[in-house]
Amino acid sequence: VVLVPGPIDGPRLLLSTDTVVAGVHFDLSLVTPADVGWKALTVAISDIAAMGGRPAHALVALSAGPATDFDALVDGISEAAKRWRCPVVGGDLTSAAQLVISVTVTGTLEGPAPAVHRSGARPGDALFVTGPLGTAAAGHRLLSDRTARSGLDAAHRLALERAFRRPEIRLAEGRAARDCGASAMMDLSDGLGLDLHRLARASGVGFVLDDVPVAPGATLSEALGGGEDYELLIAAPDDGALAAGFQALGLLVPQRIGVCTADATEHRLGQRSLEATGYQHRF
Amino acid sequence: VVLVPGPIDGPRLLLSTDTVVAGVHFDLSLVTPADVGWKALTVAISDIAAMGGRPAHALVALSAGPATDFDALVDGISEAAKRWRCPVVGGDLTSAAQLVISVTVTGTLEGPAPAVHRSGARPGDALFVTGPLGTAAAGHRLLSDRTARSGLDAAHRLALERAFRRPEIRLAEGRAARDCGASAMMDLSDGLGLDLHRLARASGVGFVLDDVPVAPGATLSEALGGGEDYELLIAAPDDGALAAGFQALGLLVPQRIGVCTADATEHRLGQRSLEATGYQHRF
Repeated sequence: VVLVPGPIDGPRLLLSTDTVVAGVHFDLSLVTPADVGWKALTVAISDIAAMGGRPAHALVALSAGPATDFDALVDGISEAAKRWRCPVVGGDLTSAAQLVISVTVTGTLEGPAPAVHRSGARPGDALFVTGPLGTAAAGHRLLSDRTARSGLDAAHRLALERAFRRPEIRLAEGRAARDCGASAMMDLSDGLGLDLHRLARASGVGFVLDDVPVAPGATLSEALGGGEDYELLIAAPDDGALAAGFQALGLLVPQRIGVCTADATEHRLGQRSLEATGYQHRF
Repeated sequence: VVLVPGPIDGPRLLLSTDTVVAGVHFDLSLVTPADVGWKALTVAISDIAAMGGRPAHALVALSAGPATDFDALVDGISEAAKRWRCPVVGGDLTSAAQLVISVTVTGTLEGPAPAVHRSGARPGDALFVTGPLGTAAAGHRLLSDRTARSGLDAAHRLALERAFRRPEIRLAEGRAARDCGASAMMDLSDGLGLDLHRLARASGVGFVLDDVPVAPGATLSEALGGGEDYELLIAAPDDGALAAGFQALGLLVPQRIGVCTADATEHRLGQRSLEATGYQHRF
């Protein structure tokens, strides 16, 4: 048990749990144990970002066999805890045949704005993403297939691989979106092609996309179906308030990619139909 | 992510994580999946009891293969959530080769009394347990070995087996002990023989036991080394306040089993030396 020192700031507590399993969510032939630790903590915190919250504490439950490199795993967890200012205050360690990491994160929802869920988008809302997509999928491709590396300079390749191994998340952007009146939000953990359908279905709206921002070095298919980018997908009134708010805070303005429509069966990218793309966890 | 409805009552938040693994913490040839679910939630909540807190919410991370009987598992979790008034507000489900259940519980520490840790016992404090010991170990023996069942009436046997399959925990007693000035407390998850040494070492005291209350049907060895009883071990000033407080609350008065001494190397049960008994997780 952990007694959290001092009062929790504000009355609204967020709780998030996320589990990663060896052979399902990661492959130790492509990434290091430190990468796994980083990612386990980071993706759990991303759920707090996607609601507009601030992470407070993490608890880490590790189940692993004796061959596990605990030091490296814990190093990665600690780096991420420092990076996202979310100290690990407890957890437990059990023996198991398979490496399983469950991370629980608490967070707080500060200020008067309501929590942002994926179900709040309304017809006419604009849709935004906080950055170009497909970096993690491209990084995975480069790590898996050495022949894919030709034609990319080393720094670019390493940046893409790093996006897969050590994803960044959008905490300041999530809070800003909530403060600027976002109506719906989620992180793109499974890729825009699947997650946008989820947001639209939960909100009872359709969508028409003008554009999908594909990261340099990634393909459109990776941008739509890749997942693990952890950029935020945001719906907000189409009145410029979101862009103005981000600008005032000195944050990169999210890219407008389309609008929500009243016809919940409408799923378009330009003139094309964009049906839900199934996501498979990659190694 | 879960947005906890309403403010958390009181400023002090408790967080506890506990993991159970198939083949390490339970054996599905002896217990049902519903038993496993009950126990996973219950033992995580017991850590909150041992600090004098009240459970608030649980998050359950399940990693399991397709052969897992999820319905039964979830039934057991739900029964325990209802029993301990600790609703499951979130969690996640991932595929894995081995069944692993990580439960995170939040709790609150109400009122002005400080949290009770295992490290607060002082020389001269009396030691108490909230009930007779060895029931879970005896229940395990009866479930594992049919020949052990002779000479016990059926109701008694079933009660012991139930103590192993569906442990009860001491939430009201934990809060009462904290309110009545307990100096140190822990739950006896690994057995008095090991846990008392832990409490004494953490507090820098020794101990002399007059007595170990052995549950009917259990052996002294099961009472000392069995574990999984989840009775509370309490240290408190030897002034009768603890007993009076429990009586005033209508709770069964904990049994006094001995005292803490100033010599941290003193570990006695009557005239015998009582060294730390190693604990092995039983199936």
